[in-house]
Amino acid sequence: MRRVFIYDTTLRDGTQAQDISLTTEDKLRIALRLDELGVAYVEGGWPGSNPTDKRFFQEIRNYDLKNARIAAFGSTHNHRATAATDPNLKALLDSGAPVVTIFGKSWDIHVTDALGTTLPRNLELVGDSLAFLRPHVGELFFDAEHFFDGYKANPDYAMAVLARAFEAGADVLVLCDTNGGTMPGDFRHILRAVIAAMPEAKLGIHTHNDSGLAVANSIEAVALGAVQVQGTVNGYGERCGNANLCSIIPSLCLKLGLECLPAGKLPLLTPTAHFVSEMVNQAPPSNQPYVGDGAFAHKGGVHVSAVVKNPLTYEHITPEAVGNVRRVLLSDLSGQSNILYKAKEFGFDLDKNDPFVLELLTTIKEREAEGYEYTAAEASYELLLNRVLGRARSYFTVTRFRVLDDSSYEREEPMTEATVMIKVGGRVKHTAATGRGPVNALDKAIRKALRGFYPRLAEMRLLDFKVRVLSGKALDDCAPSGCGTASHVRVLVESGDASRRWVTVGVSHNVIEASFQAMEDAINYKLFSDDKEKLTKALKG
Amino acid sequence: MRRVFIYDTTLRDGTQAQDISLTTEDKLRIALRLDELGVAYVEGGWPGSNPTDKRFFQEIRNYDLKNARIAAFGSTHNHRATAATDPNLKALLDSGAPVVTIFGKSWDIHVTDALGTTLPRNLELVGDSLAFLRPHVGELFFDAEHFFDGYKANPDYAMAVLARAFEAGADVLVLCDTNGGTMPGDFRHILRAVIAAMPEAKLGIHTHNDSGLAVANSIEAVALGAVQVQGTVNGYGERCGNANLCSIIPSLCLKLGLECLPAGKLPLLTPTAHFVSEMVNQAPPSNQPYVGDGAFAHKGGVHVSAVVKNPLTYEHITPEAVGNVRRVLLSDLSGQSNILYKAKEFGFDLDKNDPFVLELLTTIKEREAEGYEYTAAEASYELLLNRVLGRARSYFTVTRFRVLDDSSYEREEPMTEATVMIKVGGRVKHTAATGRGPVNALDKAIRKALRGFYPRLAEMRLLDFKVRVLSGKALDDCAPSGCGTASHVRVLVESGDASRRWVTVGVSHNVIEASFQAMEDAINYKLFSDDKEKLTKALKG
Repeated sequence: MRRVFIYDTTLRDGTQAQDISLTTEDKLRIALRLDELGVAYVEGGWPGSNPTDKRFFQEIRNYDLKNARIAAFGSTHNHRATAATDPNLKALLDSGAPVVTIFGKSWDIHVTDALGTTLPRNLELVGDSLAFLRPHVGELFFDAEHFFDGYKANPDYAMAVLARAFEAGADVLVLCDTNGGTMPGDFRHILRAVIAAMPEAKLGIHTHNDSGLAVANSIEAVALGAVQVQGTVNGYGERCGNANLCSIIPSLCLKLGLECLPAGKLPLLTPTAHFVSEMVNQAPPSNQPYVGDGAFAHKGGVHVSAVVKNPLTYEHITPEAVGNVRRVLLSDLSGQSNILYKAKEFGFDLDKNDPFVLELLTTIKEREAEGYEYTAAEASYELLLNRVLGRARSYFTVTRFRVLDDSSYEREEPMTEATVMIKVGGRVKHTAATGRGPVNALDKAIRKALRGFYPRLAEMRLLDFKVRVLSGKALDDCAPSGCGTASHVRVLVESGDASRRWVTVGVSHNVIEASFQAMEDAINYKLFSDDKEKLTKALKG
Repeated sequence: MRRVFIYDTTLRDGTQAQDISLTTEDKLRIALRLDELGVAYVEGGWPGSNPTDKRFFQEIRNYDLKNARIAAFGSTHNHRATAATDPNLKALLDSGAPVVTIFGKSWDIHVTDALGTTLPRNLELVGDSLAFLRPHVGELFFDAEHFFDGYKANPDYAMAVLARAFEAGADVLVLCDTNGGTMPGDFRHILRAVIAAMPEAKLGIHTHNDSGLAVANSIEAVALGAVQVQGTVNGYGERCGNANLCSIIPSLCLKLGLECLPAGKLPLLTPTAHFVSEMVNQAPPSNQPYVGDGAFAHKGGVHVSAVVKNPLTYEHITPEAVGNVRRVLLSDLSGQSNILYKAKEFGFDLDKNDPFVLELLTTIKEREAEGYEYTAAEASYELLLNRVLGRARSYFTVTRFRVLDDSSYEREEPMTEATVMIKVGGRVKHTAATGRGPVNALDKAIRKALRGFYPRLAEMRLLDFKVRVLSGKALDDCAPSGCGTASHVRVLVESGDASRRWVTVGVSHNVIEASFQAMEDAINYKLFSDDKEKLTKALKG
């Protein structure tokens, strides 16, 4: 089976997108997930340009990657200097990355108008930069920026740039449609011309989506023989984005029969796409090919009954192949089967005629109408399920809490104090704590109250919280002023201990109340799941 | 110039999308806008299936359309009846639409598994339905549903269906990639086979985006000779959507040099796309090719300085050609040229050697390092710019605020009270208010304090707020418990009055403090921009 090498540039070109900015920690977490998915290369950033990227390359060396090699990205050396004295090239070597990708100009107007140098000098920059790096790095790639536009404008010069990069030792020549404007016909024509002129060169492809053609052109390039495909998770990138690897990978694997991920890894695609969208804090588009929530959603009527008879009729692939699921919309039947499906995941084999199922369905529909969302908050869902089934005990009751936030012009930061009254069994604890912000203060006061009863809570940490404003009914009946601030908010809290991570949810008009609900669920879940684990062990032992 | 006929099915296939439902009035408004844009056909719906669509066809007759012909959509007749007695075909004729499109099965498993009839009987359904309608309608189109999958499975049968439709009098045979799974190579191969077999037939194309290839395959079909392209505005449609006409039309007009809209109409494309997204109540994706807000947005410093020198360097077309505009974003990647460009937008023609530019750059970089993000919060940026340049006065100073949030087990909802001390000129106002949550209470207390001084604040409303937790430095030095809750948060507040909307930003460890900063900026911006407007008018008058 022919192998195609997937080169992910989410951490570099993806961060050029309008609203995306990543910390070093975000980048590390994404890189590890991409490695788990099994891409061949993860481009970490531009080590010469900023401290975030520099630190990424330092930190990533501490991890033992299973599939991916880390690539550092940079430009050809400054035209007023030499390769040996260029700080950017030095930073690439200092990064310690086993793979280096250098981009250079291949469109004549870019050389003269953007770079401000001559066409022959640019050829030197390409050749000298690559030749300088060649002895020091494992793999060396050359991104020919604007190659397709360059070829259209001045084919001889564009080809001369490629030839120089090849002579200087680049392992792969990556043809870039940087402005994303190339039509499929022109695209194939140019690619064929390159292959004819340089049959011995290995080619890669890097496209942008300004004409909605990035995915198609990438697939065409592979069909014609390209060995490397560059792109980003969910197609993040400047303007209209980069080629979307979540669309390209399944087509290459399932439709063209090529090897582009290690065996068995393709079902990680949907969870990886959702994970990255969480990390960049952008709602994943539900209509995204293969990995979107709606990619295998059927809206009822003719399609649903056909799909039930034979999924092939309205599904081009099996959703499970890419880790996605079929969804049937606007149907009570689907609600019930979803609940049965989900309950089974948590160890309950319920019958659809079980009255609990109806109660659960009613409860969940009511709560979802209020704005609770259990797709992400599975821990809250598991608690709810166990409560309805009478299998979750109450560990504590918060009878009252108060939060006072006091900010004055003279102080650097506002002061926040929380007080909590908590009942455990028959005993009442009344505690107070200060914190950085209301959620932090409340969290500390609750832990103070509970630590005597449940010492294992010391292992647990709140890792992240997310707030979304829900529009809806609340917006209609709000006061003329302060409408937005009176609407519902949903808070998701992520918690963890040494072995697990879990997400809980709260909803209220009041961001503090919503956060409190999610934290209360988080603590209950920790206690509940510890007990469940102990019980399971005892039963086995 | 060769003409290609654009066939819009937003009102029919577009409404199959997950969250889209349109009233008759919505449909009429959209149809009129599409007519103004100049598409050749507007498919209004399925008159036999529901009262909304039936009424649409009655109402649309009262309008004098300039460019578009209205098409009614329906299926081949029921296999247990005859064409002459089929209520669905009768409804198509009763609709009075000058164009009728009939879809029929061309994939053998669909005939047997979904329709539940035999392959020869299906050929009769296709032939009889079209022959029955032919004498009564102006134009008659045949949608060969699942044609590409059908051809892959049973080419002889798929071709037999097309041949029968052609004999029965269909003006255009529309090949559908209904499941959206066909790869470009197979797509061209099948299309070429059809053209070779039926050189005298006019072909149309209807694709879905399940593999991210709907736009590319549509363009390929036109390049090979198809005369009609079916699709939807913004690519709305079931699952991953239909072919996006907003991506296809500009490529056909500007790149392939074909006539697909009347002369001068292409700049209506972006406003039409945004209008339709408003009508279906879905935020338009900013990364949409050609018509997205971000389609011509530049973030990187290198890109911006190149675009300023020569727009061709990073723009594949002139944004104005499709009614869009260039935007320059501010971010940590931004250099001097972004700042100069942005300042110009706000009326400041700064020189790059102006010491203010350096001060501004330093201030912005510092604030961005703390987590402020000006890409979205342009109002905060405009204020900052004017403050650095000494052109924004101080309207008020908040010397202290307190927020008390009190929740008890007995009460339905927590009680929140805010108190504020505000100085305006030499006078101090001390106010208190309750609200639904801390932000709402604070907002009300501030307005109470300011309304005597600035009555025009009564026009202003807070419309939305967004909260994002920023990981980063704060995560490193936080306490062992409550780490996530002690990290930085960024709040974006959207405000508006009768004529404008604006977004401001705040950052703090404390969600209340961050919200307060964004609200403070929002009010300052309202007062500042009102004054600026007044001044501009006075200078002109």
